Amino acid sequence: MTILETPIAVIDAQPFQRNLERMAQFAERSGIRLRPHAKSHKCSEIARRQLALGAVGVCCQAIGEAVAMVKGGVEDVLITNMVVTPGKLAQIAELARQASIGLCFDDEEQVRRAGEVFAARGAQVDAYIEIEAGGERCGVESPEEAVTLARTIAQHPLLRFMGLQVYHGKAQHMRSIAERRDAARDAGGKALAVKVALAGAGFSCERITGAGTGSFAADALVGVLNEWQCGSYAFMDRDYGENDADDPQFEHSLFIAATVISLRDSFVVIDAGLKALAFDSGLPLVAGRPDLSYFGPNDEHGRIDVSKARTPLKIGDQVHLIPGHCDPTLALHDEIAFMRQGQIEAMWKVDGRGPR
Amino acid sequence: MTILETPIAVIDAQPFQRNLERMAQFAERSGIRLRPHAKSHKCSEIARRQLALGAVGVCCQAIGEAVAMVKGGVEDVLITNMVVTPGKLAQIAELARQASIGLCFDDEEQVRRAGEVFAARGAQVDAYIEIEAGGERCGVESPEEAVTLARTIAQHPLLRFMGLQVYHGKAQHMRSIAERRDAARDAGGKALAVKVALAGAGFSCERITGAGTGSFAADALVGVLNEWQCGSYAFMDRDYGENDADDPQFEHSLFIAATVISLRDSFVVIDAGLKALAFDSGLPLVAGRPDLSYFGPNDEHGRIDVSKARTPLKIGDQVHLIPGHCDPTLALHDEIAFMRQGQIEAMWKVDGRGPR
Repeated sequence: MTILETPIAVIDAQPFQRNLERMAQFAERSGIRLRPHAKSHKCSEIARRQLALGAVGVCCQAIGEAVAMVKGGVEDVLITNMVVTPGKLAQIAELARQASIGLCFDDEEQVRRAGEVFAARGAQVDAYIEIEAGGERCGVESPEEAVTLARTIAQHPLLRFMGLQVYHGKAQHMRSIAERRDAARDAGGKALAVKVALAGAGFSCERITGAGTGSFAADALVGVLNEWQCGSYAFMDRDYGENDADDPQFEHSLFIAATVISLRDSFVVIDAGLKALAFDSGLPLVAGRPDLSYFGPNDEHGRIDVSKARTPLKIGDQVHLIPGHCDPTLALHDEIAFMRQGQIEAMWKVDGRGPR
Repeated sequence: MTILETPIAVIDAQPFQRNLERMAQFAERSGIRLRPHAKSHKCSEIARRQLALGAVGVCCQAIGEAVAMVKGGVEDVLITNMVVTPGKLAQIAELARQASIGLCFDDEEQVRRAGEVFAARGAQVDAYIEIEAGGERCGVESPEEAVTLARTIAQHPLLRFMGLQVYHGKAQHMRSIAERRDAARDAGGKALAVKVALAGAGFSCERITGAGTGSFAADALVGVLNEWQCGSYAFMDRDYGENDADDPQFEHSLFIAATVISLRDSFVVIDAGLKALAFDSGLPLVAGRPDLSYFGPNDEHGRIDVSKARTPLKIGDQVHLIPGHCDPTLALHDEIAFMRQGQIEAMWKVDGRGPR
């Protein structure tokens, strides 16, 4: 067993590989293109493993992620976000020389800005119209808006209209299968209405992309999407683990290893707090130790309630924490220890980490 | 005005400089050593500016912070934390060849582990006993425990007993001045009781170190500490801004710049969410725009309620957000734009960033 310097992000090779394979097989059986979201891992090594199992490319949210993925050999990147500043649009134009790049739009001003930069730089980019699918965030709200936007996109010869992005963020975390199916049906219905209106105006939607780890099985039943963007399935954080399990099922494979540094009567202090774990989706679990519970994070400290511990924790002991939310947790880490049966097999760079 | 690629951490030079000077002057007038906590900024450039104004050194929590500070020229670092793994203790031994290093203890097992590594490497390190001052985290709980621990420390010739660490984390965020004074008095009383017991056992406390941006003015009145560890005063996050103001006062100087990327009816979407801001102390404020309020962060998105906006926000507009909590916010950023009157004067590396 390697003694890890903690806190450190750790992937357990075996459940991780099973997760990648299960999703790849399910997408293949469903006849859906799988384009895993790299915002979950931000790691081109993981993207290459997903591509090797049949993924058509990756999604990114931040431009830094897209830059890292293209540099790491990914040839097809969909930026599932709006981009409006000249510097980032110039970065996208540069990426479009090396790879197939897609970008989302929900406003004519975004199209004007992107069109101008891409034309000046001769960069061909795929354009997707984002539909407000229930996430209460970005997206056009009606078929009419979508038709108007498609006409604006068509005025820019270097923007190639490819279809729709329909991502229902809230549906991912609905706990019951029935709720998620209802949400997927709503989102699919909105997408179909837009597709029909666009067809009437002469625009064909080659791709309808969306879905996440919470909703893809429900989206598969609805059958409107032809591309899935799931990312978290590779790791399964605590939050996704609380959804009623659908088929296929995934296992926790991402952990934050932490060390006990101080003892008190009813708790111990460990070296993993706000700088090692994201808490936006709640507290982490202690892997394999349901008798221990994490509480009270500070910047560099966490506490483990040991009042019900079956075996005591001593100074120097290590615990493996299952993060509440994997995506922002990895935003805190520059590297991941890829471990097999307790030994580090490789250190992977989180090469797409960073806010931009 | 420089067009920033966002989200990006920004320091406004003028309030930042005034904050550094006000704290330095108050510490000097109070006759207290100022040892600013580098966990707030993790940036050796900022540490050097604090030292130039009279700081005696810095505090660090993570070893990576201490490594960056020593590499950046800081000659005196107190690690205000417990360290128990061989790898980190070896790093500390290496740092102790280049700088004066202090370390905290609250358990004999920590002393045994540190003493062994430092003896093997011939590294002299200052030892502080941490007292449980009200933060419900680390620290010995009685004068008797402290005396026992001091005797253990004395058995290790390369550990030099220097005194006490008395940090009351909870006191920093008590809103009223009266509450903070009560907490400071309690913590000071505990420290004095330990100091007296140690003196009776032949141990002299040369330094009693503690305090933060919330409590230092109250600690000054109590007069037990002779070293302050305040860090957040340099930036003033939203949380500290909500304390009833004591004297001296500080100004917000750290911001996260973000760009409007999409428009909806009652809100706009900006490109700063969980990957750009920490939310453990709540939501950020929009600087200079009390008519706007941030809500609903996602990984790479935030929303700004514009229902009460005096002037509308357009796509491409930028806002400056005052983080809820500066320390974990900077844990997300590799660099800071140091700006003077809207122009970038320098880019500073957050060279101590990282979980370990």
